[in-house]
Amino acid sequence: MKPSIPKGTRDFSPVEMLRRQYIFDTIRGVFRKYGFLPLETPAMEHLETLTGKYGEEGDRLIFRVQERGRTFESGVDKALAAGGGDAKQVADQVRKLTASEGLRYDLTVPFARYVVMHQHELAFPFKRYQIQPVWRADRPQKGRYREFYQCDADVIGSTSLLNEVELVQLFDDVFTALGLPVVVKVNDRKVLSGIAEVSGQPDMVVDIVTAIDKLEKIGREKVEEEMRNKGVSDEAIKGIAPLFELKGSWKQQRPELEKWLASSSIAQQGLKDLDTVFNAVGTMKSAVLEFDPTLARGLDYYTGAIFEVKAAEGTMPGSICGGGRYDDLT
Amino acid sequence: MKPSIPKGTRDFSPVEMLRRQYIFDTIRGVFRKYGFLPLETPAMEHLETLTGKYGEEGDRLIFRVQERGRTFESGVDKALAAGGGDAKQVADQVRKLTASEGLRYDLTVPFARYVVMHQHELAFPFKRYQIQPVWRADRPQKGRYREFYQCDADVIGSTSLLNEVELVQLFDDVFTALGLPVVVKVNDRKVLSGIAEVSGQPDMVVDIVTAIDKLEKIGREKVEEEMRNKGVSDEAIKGIAPLFELKGSWKQQRPELEKWLASSSIAQQGLKDLDTVFNAVGTMKSAVLEFDPTLARGLDYYTGAIFEVKAAEGTMPGSICGGGRYDDLT
Repeated sequence: MKPSIPKGTRDFSPVEMLRRQYIFDTIRGVFRKYGFLPLETPAMEHLETLTGKYGEEGDRLIFRVQERGRTFESGVDKALAAGGGDAKQVADQVRKLTASEGLRYDLTVPFARYVVMHQHELAFPFKRYQIQPVWRADRPQKGRYREFYQCDADVIGSTSLLNEVELVQLFDDVFTALGLPVVVKVNDRKVLSGIAEVSGQPDMVVDIVTAIDKLEKIGREKVEEEMRNKGVSDEAIKGIAPLFELKGSWKQQRPELEKWLASSSIAQQGLKDLDTVFNAVGTMKSAVLEFDPTLARGLDYYTGAIFEVKAAEGTMPGSICGGGRYDDLT
Repeated sequence: MKPSIPKGTRDFSPVEMLRRQYIFDTIRGVFRKYGFLPLETPAMEHLETLTGKYGEEGDRLIFRVQERGRTFESGVDKALAAGGGDAKQVADQVRKLTASEGLRYDLTVPFARYVVMHQHELAFPFKRYQIQPVWRADRPQKGRYREFYQCDADVIGSTSLLNEVELVQLFDDVFTALGLPVVVKVNDRKVLSGIAEVSGQPDMVVDIVTAIDKLEKIGREKVEEEMRNKGVSDEAIKGIAPLFELKGSWKQQRPELEKWLASSSIAQQGLKDLDTVFNAVGTMKSAVLEFDPTLARGLDYYTGAIFEVKAAEGTMPGSICGGGRYDDLT
């Protein structure tokens, strides 16, 4: 009977390992150069640490880890004792036999947990990188695995925009070293809030932004249709219309944005922050920094800059990686 | 409520990570130098792959991995349907709700599984190294963790003693590079079999060898007492007595061993194999190669050379690592 491995997992042969080592070593070298320190956390975390952090669907995707023997067996015994002769009661008791540990789903939650545990010993800003596998009980598909590596670099404890500037330069350094030309798209949550504000329906910011995020994929008409279906008024949609006229470099878009979003002070602050980033980044090696007002990843948590890295035209579809600022890591 | 991590697991701070990276990079460099190729396997393996491989206690120490939601919930539903109103039947059905995956317990079983799966694509001898964490649901103690790294280097598909010679030199290179003087103890399963043979009670080889393995810890009297308690005859114990007179280098012990074990052809073969190793290893950098007739690790599987590396006198207690040859990797 031929052995196999669980769905969604892979072995890495020597050839694959040599390539992966090259890529991870390159990334690690750039992380170190930018002053990020290495950190590793356990594969297992308490379920309370992991649950409730990834939205509605998230908890279902966390792998549970359980010791056999003592824990599960005695749990079933207890359920039997507690339920008496009542089958349904036994079943209900057993349902509570949840494992208490799970496999980490990403590296950000463990990082936050580590910082909380060690906050009195750490010097802030604390810059750490983590390169470790994570596990998700997803439906396996092409390109989607249940065990895969992540390479995270995060800064905690600084409001300075120099971090955003460094992050852009770090993206440039990594992908130049890997020989992969990329576009670093940047936006700011404050600009997105401003767009909803000037539309006249600021409370519909999530629906508005979620729709315009799809512009590249589905086009203007379908984006406006989706907003309409979600209950965005015709007047608001008109207020958003200047978005579709924006084009060119940051320098070219900037005055148009300033005019369009003049009545929103939060948008103006966002534009100033973006100015700082564009001015300070300077000459890049091979990457291109591009403002994209429709970029809306991580809406649930980003509060400032939003980044997404894509391969330059014609090389690779989809996004390679991303990042952004969030002010509340609880 | 302050967060924590599961018992038996650790975070590695930046300082600890820098030290670990140094150690792992050093070991990896020596592995590469000796022609071992990198391999990585998934954290999860099917339970059938993991169970039955680690002795009686082994299966209990394997962490089970389970998806929540669909699998467990529907399992409880099915148990309830199958058991009808019978609480005990429900409990019994639920007990069968074993997860089908577990976390790897070591790196050798995944390696064997990989070789079986890819045997027609691999060139033999196949030399691979793996540096990855493993998980064991042990009782946590000082120095005993539930998640810890292993660094394995294995050769499969060669009966040549040159592999034993290289392994000794690899130990020397690793610990010289790490600045840790070590003693590489070597023995051979064939010699141990020979000792039991000349004692006159070859069928008691496990009890005899298990007892003499404790010589350093409990002394000759207690070793003989243990053998007596296990049912080894007085005559056999007399036949084993020359063991306690052995001392000195391999050159000095060799003729005594040859005389004592003259009637055992398997022991004579073992002595010849050890000759080959001692002669070919040559001058070592800082490690010392020492024959130890009481060394008996891995009795259940080793069929040839047995190695154990210990820190040189006065530096560190316990064994650092080990290895050996086994001829049946099923």
